[in-house]
Amino acid sequence: MASIPIQNAVTAQPAEREYVIGLDLGGTNLKYGIISNFGEIVYKNFVPAETQKGGRRVIDVMKQAAYECLMFSKKENFSIKAIGAGCPGTIDSVNGRSLGPAPHIVEWEGVEITKPLSEIARVPVFADNDANFMTYGETAWGAARGFRYVVGLTLGTGVGGGIVIDGSIYHGHLFNGAELGHVVVEADGRPCACGNHGCLEKYVGAHAIVRDIIDAIDHGTKSSIMELVQSKNDINPAWIFKAAELGDELCTRIVNQMIQYLGAGISSMVNVLSPEIVVIGGGMSDAGDDFIAKVREETLSRVMKPVKPHLKIVRAKLGNDAGIVGAGTWALKKT
Amino acid sequence: MASIPIQNAVTAQPAEREYVIGLDLGGTNLKYGIISNFGEIVYKNFVPAETQKGGRRVIDVMKQAAYECLMFSKKENFSIKAIGAGCPGTIDSVNGRSLGPAPHIVEWEGVEITKPLSEIARVPVFADNDANFMTYGETAWGAARGFRYVVGLTLGTGVGGGIVIDGSIYHGHLFNGAELGHVVVEADGRPCACGNHGCLEKYVGAHAIVRDIIDAIDHGTKSSIMELVQSKNDINPAWIFKAAELGDELCTRIVNQMIQYLGAGISSMVNVLSPEIVVIGGGMSDAGDDFIAKVREETLSRVMKPVKPHLKIVRAKLGNDAGIVGAGTWALKKT
Repeated sequence: MASIPIQNAVTAQPAEREYVIGLDLGGTNLKYGIISNFGEIVYKNFVPAETQKGGRRVIDVMKQAAYECLMFSKKENFSIKAIGAGCPGTIDSVNGRSLGPAPHIVEWEGVEITKPLSEIARVPVFADNDANFMTYGETAWGAARGFRYVVGLTLGTGVGGGIVIDGSIYHGHLFNGAELGHVVVEADGRPCACGNHGCLEKYVGAHAIVRDIIDAIDHGTKSSIMELVQSKNDINPAWIFKAAELGDELCTRIVNQMIQYLGAGISSMVNVLSPEIVVIGGGMSDAGDDFIAKVREETLSRVMKPVKPHLKIVRAKLGNDAGIVGAGTWALKKT
Repeated sequence: MASIPIQNAVTAQPAEREYVIGLDLGGTNLKYGIISNFGEIVYKNFVPAETQKGGRRVIDVMKQAAYECLMFSKKENFSIKAIGAGCPGTIDSVNGRSLGPAPHIVEWEGVEITKPLSEIARVPVFADNDANFMTYGETAWGAARGFRYVVGLTLGTGVGGGIVIDGSIYHGHLFNGAELGHVVVEADGRPCACGNHGCLEKYVGAHAIVRDIIDAIDHGTKSSIMELVQSKNDINPAWIFKAAELGDELCTRIVNQMIQYLGAGISSMVNVLSPEIVVIGGGMSDAGDDFIAKVREETLSRVMKPVKPHLKIVRAKLGNDAGIVGAGTWALKKT
């Protein structure tokens, strides 16, 4: 049992503790836990999501995880009020089902999410997109706490996004909003799997920058990153940032280019939404505070003058837990 | 007196007619009129805005216009319930003042808008950005009537934008949202007066495309547009579209490029906001239905699969009246 107080309980208002289950479905693992209304994680675990076995199997994995949490709550003698389930892709949060495919889950389109979970748990269940819940988690208990207009970005293999306005997740028509990885940064740019050209994701996603490095090396560019990894297959963003830090020219160029594109993409989001704060999470935010500082600098150099003194660009605070905290806290709010 | 029923009164619900004044401040003229709660314009006029004489003088022009409308209502024996005032630039709609400069108005920053108008009219006054009111007007009585998620674009010298969600104007933090002309379409593109690079406005605004044509001609590109105009100074978007229609190669290329950039910019807005409908107004929408059809085609080729069957891209319906109708109708809603 992991008991991680995220926020000093003294600052929270409610008198009694209430508990919810948060599920966060990723491409590889399902993360899950029990969250309190004080933002504490009182139980936490993860299992392989078995995404290659298809959407229905993934739901079984989620049911098992929910059952494990329910058993824990029974043993500890408290009750579970609701479940929040964060999932990749377009999620119909009203009817609790997947509306579209997800890159890492076989047969994910049209799968029921909330119904099977509520059958096992007999509590209200709320499903939403994982990046929406990450952004909500950061707004409820993390880096964006207290802010009214919040944009969240998850920089991973792809780029996900969430928008929280006045404490509510913004979905747009038919839940297709906040696809922030598909803001265009080059009108005639790289073709994207989404059907568009020049999407942000194609320039700053982990997959994209690894591809950029390998292509350059294949075309004869020398890079000291090859001294850090055993083979080209081992190149990942962490090594790219490390090599750039050590002064490698190719990696420095690719990281700088990525920062430029991120600044351009975020400035578009800022000019549309005028958020108070942009929270950057996902695996690549682990590149550290220096990286975030550079993204902040590039973005602030691009936004309009009245925005400059107010806009915050910060690193996510809850790390890998933002998804389960957001899912659980949202479920509690909606119950 | 112009009496223009915008919408068949039979479809509207209220039993009694109520009247509001709508003001729409442009770079050259102030348009104004009296709007009913049935969406009719019962009085309409315009005067030079005298923008070169400074923001305070412009307010005097607005006061005179409001007075003229009040006198008309007195003569016709009905009362005015409220005033809406649409103005360029960033408008603090809570405190009714300008927060920033506007390209065509001298000393516009910090000018009080609602206070002087309410002193003369003794009714509630509401100020907002002109493109916001245009979008609201189209949502209340025009092309976007009945839609929940609306994006409005005004294609003129520059590019303005408005966002209406659930019948409310979206402002963002400190009223800096919906700057849709400053969505980036080329990360390393043309420098923009806003401080950014590659803004949509720099590729599709009237000023930008006229500049593109003149530059090309100055660099020796032959164009039949010179047979349509007396001198290069007479080139404007209407002539560019005309020349393209007549088969001129340069103008066709510039128009196609403009459509590509518009599609890219709108697809970014769609991926952030997931609107149901994008309404295109402003002087350049007069290029006609064929132009709008091409912008629609380019945009739909870029948006995500689930969005394609639903997204509407349409030409504004209220034309030059959208601003005064939106301003008046918003004031009525807020009263």
